[in-house]
Amino acid sequence: MTQTFSYERLFNFVYQVFLKMGCIEEHAILATRVLLSADMRGVDSHGVARLNGYVRLWEAKRINVTPNIRVVHETPSTAVVDGDAGLGLAVAPFAMQVAIEKAEKAGTGWVAVKNSNHFGIAGYHAMIALEHNMIGIAMTNASAIVAPTFSVERMLGTNPIAVAIPAHNEPPFVADFATTTASNGKLEILQRKGEEAPAGWVQDANGQSTTNANALKEGGALLPLGGDREHGCHKGYALGSIVDIFSAVLSGASYGPWAPPFPAYVPMPVNMPGEGLGHFFGAMRVDAFRPLVEFEEHIDNWIRRFRTAKPAPGYEKVLIPGDIEREMEIKRSKDGIPLFASVVEDLNRVGEKMGVERLTPKRV
Amino acid sequence: MTQTFSYERLFNFVYQVFLKMGCIEEHAILATRVLLSADMRGVDSHGVARLNGYVRLWEAKRINVTPNIRVVHETPSTAVVDGDAGLGLAVAPFAMQVAIEKAEKAGTGWVAVKNSNHFGIAGYHAMIALEHNMIGIAMTNASAIVAPTFSVERMLGTNPIAVAIPAHNEPPFVADFATTTASNGKLEILQRKGEEAPAGWVQDANGQSTTNANALKEGGALLPLGGDREHGCHKGYALGSIVDIFSAVLSGASYGPWAPPFPAYVPMPVNMPGEGLGHFFGAMRVDAFRPLVEFEEHIDNWIRRFRTAKPAPGYEKVLIPGDIEREMEIKRSKDGIPLFASVVEDLNRVGEKMGVERLTPKRV
Repeated sequence: MTQTFSYERLFNFVYQVFLKMGCIEEHAILATRVLLSADMRGVDSHGVARLNGYVRLWEAKRINVTPNIRVVHETPSTAVVDGDAGLGLAVAPFAMQVAIEKAEKAGTGWVAVKNSNHFGIAGYHAMIALEHNMIGIAMTNASAIVAPTFSVERMLGTNPIAVAIPAHNEPPFVADFATTTASNGKLEILQRKGEEAPAGWVQDANGQSTTNANALKEGGALLPLGGDREHGCHKGYALGSIVDIFSAVLSGASYGPWAPPFPAYVPMPVNMPGEGLGHFFGAMRVDAFRPLVEFEEHIDNWIRRFRTAKPAPGYEKVLIPGDIEREMEIKRSKDGIPLFASVVEDLNRVGEKMGVERLTPKRV
Repeated sequence: MTQTFSYERLFNFVYQVFLKMGCIEEHAILATRVLLSADMRGVDSHGVARLNGYVRLWEAKRINVTPNIRVVHETPSTAVVDGDAGLGLAVAPFAMQVAIEKAEKAGTGWVAVKNSNHFGIAGYHAMIALEHNMIGIAMTNASAIVAPTFSVERMLGTNPIAVAIPAHNEPPFVADFATTTASNGKLEILQRKGEEAPAGWVQDANGQSTTNANALKEGGALLPLGGDREHGCHKGYALGSIVDIFSAVLSGASYGPWAPPFPAYVPMPVNMPGEGLGHFFGAMRVDAFRPLVEFEEHIDNWIRRFRTAKPAPGYEKVLIPGDIEREMEIKRSKDGIPLFASVVEDLNRVGEKMGVERLTPKRV
């Protein structure tokens, strides 16, 4: 059911598509890197499978392929970036770079972004800080498919948070998670398999928790992390709200139920209170707090202590955030990236339309 | 079962106790304010009921009542504060003040604190920023009673996060929550009532989820927000870890399972890798991103839109983080603060020991 491709083969394909859309070379490279990092890390829902979605947004004139991405307001440790409706995949690395430059001088840098769109996986952007011996933070708002506690209305996106923390000899700590119990991607897998969802993932159109994996499509909503009130879903709702406010209200983007949708066939919300989608990035120079090596050695100690915490019966070991994705990245750099046949077909339809050479599976 | 006291009566009592401990007047006032803000906001587990705990820590010589609280490292937007083993209740407002002063000049301020102890409710400290037209952030690590996903070992505290965001005509958005499914305080209420806990709050010493509300006392552990793997407890574990690392590893405090315990009868961990407990504070000047009134009016709009989101059947309305605590604060400023008789007895034992006049219930 899957066909396997090398990173390089997929890179060239996706890069050519972005070039054909009219992106400048730098943006095409950046956007391709971000998308493929999701496939490499095993976050298949956010990788090349979404390329068609970006192309459709471009066709719907919701993406500007020649944006003037720029800082429109700043202080020593902050900036607001206007993405000029550019690809979020290219806007986000620009904004993270601004955060890093601010941090070099002021100790930390915090950048709110407006007028952007889907930026791929949050973890990619947070991890850019690692190369600069900084802690990286990335978050974004997104199309509203999540109901706040006590409501039937879709008011928030899955609004992810990523935090990347450098270590010395150990691999870095990289957390990257939606502020919902489960991501939409996981729900879609159950839909395809015709399986039920665990209680606490989704509610139906009447606000009742349901195991119907199709409930979201049928007017329901995803549930904030916690799942129900008794299990703290008001905390997941608060977290998703914080991401929405930092990303979109601080920057001047469109927030809450007015966040622009990713699927191009969904009409834009009316009376949008801001411009496009919003992101929020942070970079903290480690040595703005304590000497780098000292910090990193304590992070090594932290990681080793947690990794060797006594496992519960039936489990091998405690995982550190980022372990699963890193192992997948190592595996896929060796073995290539497996794509469902349906994804390959979809990509080849895009390629044909854009005049890019067909993908054919890697010969092993 | 409860006796009611005015804010002023309790303030005077607690303030006198801190003075008798040897705190300087400024610290006694600050510490009393922080403790009582918990009672006023209905977070009874973190208010005057804990006064005895602080006294015992002082008796055990784990609290220094004449600390030299000071900045030991700084950049334009960051600082590390050494609490000198002072009361966390006084160290935290000092550190938040430093964050605010940094933000005034650099746009944002971020302060990591080492060598502190329990700082009361995180929300109090985050809310200080509101008076300065800033967003406030506060977090702290704490005694390890939480097991990471897949483990039976207690490795993290309930590690709360608070975020306070100013509005214009609406009351502010104030989220303040433990990164566990439920707080230890909620579990203690069930223990007192002899009731069972919902699944997903706590696990037993073998790492099995249990409804036994006494499981924590019997060698078990609290569970990270999410409750189990299927419901995203790896996200709660990541959040608690981020709080631990920002609060304690960035600052040079003691982290993870080595965090110093609040109960004075629990021995200090051996081989502590840092000094005392750690906190992390942030202050972001709103107008470092966009004009203050513009931002606040959008927050008003955000709050109203969420408050009027369609409620689920059986619910009256959607709540905004901070609503419940604010309503309690209004109620208790009028009606006084109800304390369980056992708490009053405990306070009076402390008062007797310290030479402070007995608390007698308010006459209505």
